[in-house]
Amino acid sequence: MDTSEVIKEVFQKVLKIEDKGKLASYIPELALVDSRKIGVHICTTSNLSFGLGDFREKFSIQSIAKVFSLCLAYKMLGEDIWARVGVEPSGTGFNSLIQLENDNGKPRNPFINAGAIVISDILLSSLTNPKDDLLAFVRSLSTNQDINYSAKISASEKSIGYRNVAMCNFIKSLGNIDNEPSEVLDFYFDLCSLELSCKHLSELFLFLANQGKTMHDNTQILTKSQTKRINALMQTCGFYDESGDFAFKVGMPGKSGVGGGIIAIHPNEYSIAVWSPKLNKKGNSYKGMMFLEQFTTLSELSIF
Amino acid sequence: MDTSEVIKEVFQKVLKIEDKGKLASYIPELALVDSRKIGVHICTTSNLSFGLGDFREKFSIQSIAKVFSLCLAYKMLGEDIWARVGVEPSGTGFNSLIQLENDNGKPRNPFINAGAIVISDILLSSLTNPKDDLLAFVRSLSTNQDINYSAKISASEKSIGYRNVAMCNFIKSLGNIDNEPSEVLDFYFDLCSLELSCKHLSELFLFLANQGKTMHDNTQILTKSQTKRINALMQTCGFYDESGDFAFKVGMPGKSGVGGGIIAIHPNEYSIAVWSPKLNKKGNSYKGMMFLEQFTTLSELSIF
Amino acid sequence: MDTSEVIKEVFQKVLKIEDKGKLASYIPELALVDSRKIGVHICTTSNLSFGLGDFREKFSIQSIAKVFSLCLAYKMLGEDIWARVGVEPSGTGFNSLIQLENDNGKPRNPFINAGAIVISDILLSSLTNPKDDLLAFVRSLSTNQDINYSAKISASEKSIGYRNVAMCNFIKSLGNIDNEPSEVLDFYFDLCSLELSCKHLSELFLFLANQGKTMHDNTQILTKSQTKRINALMQTCGFYDESGDFAFKVGMPGKSGVGGGIIAIHPNEYSIAVWSPKLNKKGNSYKGMMFLEQFTTLSELSIF
Amino acid sequence: MDTSEVIKEVFQKVLKIEDKGKLASYIPELALVDSRKIGVHICTTSNLSFGLGDFREKFSIQSIAKVFSLCLAYKMLGEDIWARVGVEPSGTGFNSLIQLENDNGKPRNPFINAGAIVISDILLSSLTNPKDDLLAFVRSLSTNQDINYSAKISASEKSIGYRNVAMCNFIKSLGNIDNEPSEVLDFYFDLCSLELSCKHLSELFLFLANQGKTMHDNTQILTKSQTKRINALMQTCGFYDESGDFAFKVGMPGKSGVGGGIIAIHPNEYSIAVWSPKLNKKGNSYKGMMFLEQFTTLSELSIF
Repeated sequence: MDTSEVIKEVFQKVLKIEDKGKLASYIPELALVDSRKIGVHICTTSNLSFGLGDFREKFSIQSIAKVFSLCLAYKMLGEDIWARVGVEPSGTGFNSLIQLENDNGKPRNPFINAGAIVISDILLSSLTNPKDDLLAFVRSLSTNQDINYSAKISASEKSIGYRNVAMCNFIKSLGNIDNEPSEVLDFYFDLCSLELSCKHLSELFLFLANQGKTMHDNTQILTKSQTKRINALMQTCGFYDESGDFAFKVGMPGKSGVGGGIIAIHPNEYSIAVWSPKLNKKGNSYKGMMFLEQFTTLSELSIF
Repeated sequence: MDTSEVIKEVFQKVLKIEDKGKLASYIPELALVDSRKIGVHICTTSNLSFGLGDFREKFSIQSIAKVFSLCLAYKMLGEDIWARVGVEPSGTGFNSLIQLENDNGKPRNPFINAGAIVISDILLSSLTNPKDDLLAFVRSLSTNQDINYSAKISASEKSIGYRNVAMCNFIKSLGNIDNEPSEVLDFYFDLCSLELSCKHLSELFLFLANQGKTMHDNTQILTKSQTKRINALMQTCGFYDESGDFAFKVGMPGKSGVGGGIIAIHPNEYSIAVWSPKLNKKGNSYKGMMFLEQFTTLSELSIF
Repeated sequence: MDTSEVIKEVFQKVLKIEDKGKLASYIPELALVDSRKIGVHICTTSNLSFGLGDFREKFSIQSIAKVFSLCLAYKMLGEDIWARVGVEPSGTGFNSLIQLENDNGKPRNPFINAGAIVISDILLSSLTNPKDDLLAFVRSLSTNQDINYSAKISASEKSIGYRNVAMCNFIKSLGNIDNEPSEVLDFYFDLCSLELSCKHLSELFLFLANQGKTMHDNTQILTKSQTKRINALMQTCGFYDESGDFAFKVGMPGKSGVGGGIIAIHPNEYSIAVWSPKLNKKGNSYKGMMFLEQFTTLSELSIF
Repeated sequence: MDTSEVIKEVFQKVLKIEDKGKLASYIPELALVDSRKIGVHICTTSNLSFGLGDFREKFSIQSIAKVFSLCLAYKMLGEDIWARVGVEPSGTGFNSLIQLENDNGKPRNPFINAGAIVISDILLSSLTNPKDDLLAFVRSLSTNQDINYSAKISASEKSIGYRNVAMCNFIKSLGNIDNEPSEVLDFYFDLCSLELSCKHLSELFLFLANQGKTMHDNTQILTKSQTKRINALMQTCGFYDESGDFAFKVGMPGKSGVGGGIIAIHPNEYSIAVWSPKLNKKGNSYKGMMFLEQFTTLSELSIF
């Protein structure tokens, strides 16, 4: 199979489809993005790399960043982190509040907001300079050094972050946050403000398709077993309420963000990033989901 | 890798571990099973087949049978079945009742009881002789003809099936059951009473590792895409509240039953069945889970 | 104050108001009722009695009958019944399913369906001829002997009673039903099928305004303390999701049914029954609620 | 009946009972209170007033203060406040989070924390000097001028108020808080820090037993209808999860606080305050509940 040909074909097809999605409106700054942008970039473990459309343009990766913070915490503290956060899909949003109360503040997985906030708390307690150290970690995953937080985005998010303030204080009241909620959230909002392009994303995530080792300098970021587990988690929990549907239709581990980005991993083979800002009802990129569904159907590159 | 050697090694190890599980007690007949039984059987798409322990002994497969009824309904009615049942993990048990109410009686997936009951209702409306036709379908998946329902088990289950009666009538009241609840449950209890050995199970499920085609007579049971989707569903929803954990630790699609059986699929490679009757707290075979975790770790045969 | 004058004035006013309610549609037989019917009847402890409109016409009292079965069980078994059913308002409908699971099948109060079903189970275990004995008890509360179950109504309700079948089997699975669900429900559906007029109702309930003693033959049905408690329960739990609102606007203990009837008690003073078949969104009689609100406002006869 | 004799008798009896309650531990400052304190004070609309034990000693009234803020908001804005907060009992605690989400941030009643926070927000928008104005309002209800907030208590509560921060931000995110959460909570924590004695409490609340008029200067604080409604609300919602039980056993409108105080109203007759710091499992004063139950039983002064 010629992967780049399949990508071209599917990309052209998806370009023509009417975009029924809507821009994320709850973060003021995200509502300003040009909604017609679309890009895709793939990196394979056999050193192929290929992009189309706006694949060099940076966008706000939002929740995709939760994979970075999780990997760093996992690398530093190992299996101990699972005492603070679970590995099960969460069911619907509103249940997670009951769930937190029943489980003494232990979120069901690290990709729902509650879980990512707990991981942020863990890193805050473990890192010397949390913001700088996290940035350094992300930069170390590829040769890209032009990676930064967006002060604009994090300020925009802080200005309306009442629900995350609620969540963090609720978990604190249940005993599963060590630091002050305001500091935890500060770090969390910065994390979500990272700006990357599709090219960046696929390069940075390639180590998860390469059994935990970076391609550019052969560093073992996570062990084989840890890598397998992160991929499993992305498979079962990476797409909010639509995780089952993504496994069902696309069939790869992945993670999406409300900025319209999606990263997906085919273990041992490749990492692929798509970006298109308008979101479907579940909060995942409308055209991005479509692209990946058709790409795995045509390429027969699903893991199932 | 010599798969049979790995199986032997792990099997010996798991034999020695103390079994902290408990026999399913809520179905009277299941509580009579010899709890020391343990068996494993693998079938590969390259025609290897290998068993150890009590792999020829029949046991009650219980919820594993939900995969058979789902496959038959999917084969007959195609994507239409997803209008009646979802493809998302369910979160915790008690939430599913709220969830049913909020979603007008549409269960989150076909592997929770609510979903399997709806699939039973679909088959009841579609098949001429539901019990016989389903049995014929299961027998057609391999050369085994000695496959039967257990009247004892289904009678035992009916005698205490108040919760399933509750569930089925609740869904009926919400409009997502067409037939009379008592008839739907009759069929459902028979389905769950199927008795199979590990050898049977791995042979019957091999078509899901073979892109939907049986090995013995090359029949396309499900299309490639349908097969991929059934595997994805088993990955995200096959182990009740422990589906995330199974993906995390084992990393294969699979399905368990309260009889202590587990089937797991490595797409394109093999199907493997384990049986050990004592269950962990989540209702999955204690030693069965352990075996599969160590097997995929040692063999590095996870899909992630 | 001349009570009958106030009733006349309010009755005339309510007659003219547009009825924005809707007939109960989920029980087929109830949907056949003439929706323009309206009646009111009051009985005081000083032997006044007064009626207006269709106050002599019988209608299906439905949930109002739950007060009769509760009083009989309370009379026979005393405070022991509170081990099986609680005395707290229930919050919203769907929560009661979670609540039952969390509380091992103990319903929050005897006026939600779950609670009335448990009371039915208690009576079924305690009475020799449950149906006849309950009827005899109701007849003994006044001089009315023309009180009967409606076979038509109970058959109509059984034909669509899936949700109550669900509820009863769910509680059975949680261990708080002793008899077979089908027998419990049979008795429960008969109970709810009782047909009474406003005149009947106010006469039958007068003992609750008379410290537990019947007026016609001075029999102490319940003790003073038990009577006080039944009234308190009707105050906090008698109107489903609208119990708070009824206390707030009307300010008397009471009980409503989906047949459009409402009974209300002013302790030591009077009992008053209203009937108007169309229901508001919460399932209580639209005009009945209005009448009682204006009656207590004008007469200043609230208990608060 | 000689009320003061009944009080003496019951008081002696309750003094001897073993106190199985526990001091509120979650607010550090409250845990320092002498747990053996006990006092009671009654004021009647016929100008009788009588106290026993530590009835002159001030304690933290906590949630009882929610009645003051509600009365002030009701007085100023009338029925409009019910667009922001409901009048229904809440069911169990954890449900209220789902409930808030389903009802767009409208709390079920003004006595759960969520509701009292919304009332605080309303006052913050309506008063010129919220803290001073509220204090002036409370002082105007009787001749007591020595009523003040406790800076110690409010500081203690703020230091661990994560759950209230969570609640307030959650409601803000749902659109039912106008001011900044931190300002709303500041005001709310001050409100809850009011310190009063049993004598103060019964004197301040007497207007609710006097159809809304103060006894000392004949000011109409609330209309008759508003007064009736506040009493109805205290009856159905005044004791958290134990409101039904309080109506059932005591049978009067009332409100409790985690400082161990309880105020109860017998409309047209009297107001009575009890204080004993140890709490039962539902968070209400253990001996206080007992005293009131026996007082209404012996005096037969229940409203039912």
